[in-house]
Amino acid sequence: MKELSNLMNYRSDIKVVDATLRDGGLVNDFYFTDEFVRNLYLANQKAGVDYMEFGYKASREMFDENKFGKWKFCNDDDIRAVVGDNDTDLKIAVMADVGRCDYKTDIVNRADSPIDLIRVATYLNTIPAAVDMIEDAAKKGYEVSCNIMAISNAQESDLKVALDILGQSPVNIFYIVDSYGSLYPEQIARIADVYLEFAAKYGKKLGIHAHNNQQLAFANTIEAVGDGVDYLDATYASMGRGAGNCAMELLLGFLRNPKYNVYPVIQFIEDHVRKLQENGTVWGYDLQYLMTGLLNQHPRAAIQFTKNKRNDYAEFYREIIVQD
Amino acid sequence: MKELSNLMNYRSDIKVVDATLRDGGLVNDFYFTDEFVRNLYLANQKAGVDYMEFGYKASREMFDENKFGKWKFCNDDDIRAVVGDNDTDLKIAVMADVGRCDYKTDIVNRADSPIDLIRVATYLNTIPAAVDMIEDAAKKGYEVSCNIMAISNAQESDLKVALDILGQSPVNIFYIVDSYGSLYPEQIARIADVYLEFAAKYGKKLGIHAHNNQQLAFANTIEAVGDGVDYLDATYASMGRGAGNCAMELLLGFLRNPKYNVYPVIQFIEDHVRKLQENGTVWGYDLQYLMTGLLNQHPRAAIQFTKNKRNDYAEFYREIIVQD
Repeated sequence: MKELSNLMNYRSDIKVVDATLRDGGLVNDFYFTDEFVRNLYLANQKAGVDYMEFGYKASREMFDENKFGKWKFCNDDDIRAVVGDNDTDLKIAVMADVGRCDYKTDIVNRADSPIDLIRVATYLNTIPAAVDMIEDAAKKGYEVSCNIMAISNAQESDLKVALDILGQSPVNIFYIVDSYGSLYPEQIARIADVYLEFAAKYGKKLGIHAHNNQQLAFANTIEAVGDGVDYLDATYASMGRGAGNCAMELLLGFLRNPKYNVYPVIQFIEDHVRKLQENGTVWGYDLQYLMTGLLNQHPRAAIQFTKNKRNDYAEFYREIIVQD
Repeated sequence: MKELSNLMNYRSDIKVVDATLRDGGLVNDFYFTDEFVRNLYLANQKAGVDYMEFGYKASREMFDENKFGKWKFCNDDDIRAVVGDNDTDLKIAVMADVGRCDYKTDIVNRADSPIDLIRVATYLNTIPAAVDMIEDAAKKGYEVSCNIMAISNAQESDLKVALDILGQSPVNIFYIVDSYGSLYPEQIARIADVYLEFAAKYGKKLGIHAHNNQQLAFANTIEAVGDGVDYLDATYASMGRGAGNCAMELLLGFLRNPKYNVYPVIQFIEDHVRKLQENGTVWGYDLQYLMTGLLNQHPRAAIQFTKNKRNDYAEFYREIIVQD
């Protein structure tokens, strides 16, 4: 049975990470209004959320600043305009992708930055580059996580090698990332076991970032809670790429720690997230995402299907089966 | 670990029950077109579904036939107009509610009926009346299930008494019914354990009917599969009361028995279910259903909120918290 099996108590080392701006930004090219961001920051504080991820530290060499909102780049000054000195319990996170971030110059010392946590996102085949970024961020004083993406495509033996390498780095948190929304709770349990082995060996924490292709983002997240995973990603109303993420309102409703409060989340969704949806920003579970999840494929074809406003689901299924 | 833990094999005693017309009928007062019903019957056959529930055997004394579509009443002749002699592997089910069904007259001998399975729906406090219906249906030659509703509100000791009584009846299947969409997978595992104890003692099968208030209908259903539950209710595109049910397209994607095929489900949703949605029939996960699920309340207030096209979610939350 699970550690939380009586569902009455809670583990105080659980941390909730709001990834709305970062994963949600993939849906609207990071064009959030300042009002949205400011109110999200306040809602997260009221809700007891532990970390708020503002977006990416993306390379300005590789990405045109005129084609994205500012949270693709997360200048420290832009964050500071929202949070001031952030004299709150809510910590600030950004994501840095291997190969898409000029971390040596764009990430300054933590003492000079409003950011607390650098989340290094990598695929299994770029672990050495991730380690370089982790060492840089740790040296600069940050908490650091390593988010290993597309884990549903990984060989278990490769994963173990990667976790052994990462274990020897100064990273604080290993993240399980089900980028394709392809995993079932039982598989999460088994993968978490592998992660736990190396987390215990090297004194690291574990996190999970789930996608909702099969309506399992929340279920997989609470499965992981029972498997010793502490850092839980969620987004308001599931806002995120494709089928979206674990819904913050579901997660906070589940967690029993009285520091968490679902009401400010509901209020923020009503006041701010619904507007995005009414204005045509689309995300969330739909048949095309179920299909790529089932087939353990990257959601890019499903995202294109959505963008093209297609509704010939059966034809789409035939297309991606052929490509499989 | 689960019986299905390698996720590669399957249990051949799994049965998939399509409840689209019955639970979906609660959304549109059972006004399905003949074309919809006929094509659903064909899609279920192609998809390998084991049972198709056509609707309720509701009392014509209690309910006005002019205010509901015919599947509220499920005349044998209406079913026969769709299925003929039903010379297929797809079995036919109907639901009969305790206290809302003239079963002695409206349910004829199975030899004279296209129906195979009578699903007796009851609350815990009407078990003796359910037993009377079960005995009547069994005597007439039917397979019989007993669907114990609102189980999330039940005392475990009461549940055990009920299962012990039902165990001594000729019922074939005990059903776990999470009417309020309030249960987490861990709770399903624990409840299934209680059910299994009595199923083993009396030689009965188990089934599950889940609701999607917390986006857990599918997760709870596949949790139950791993806990020895064989009869799995699902509906196309989750169509069902309030937040709806376990989605058939998710369930068939998960099951590994090659007899199941998700493609006809996708095709039917594209061709028929989307039209219902475009014409204004509303169901599925939304914040108001999450809230009643979280509070373990009947979804009626949330259904009214939906009908009234309200979107003041925060005010609704305050209302139902006060009533709690």
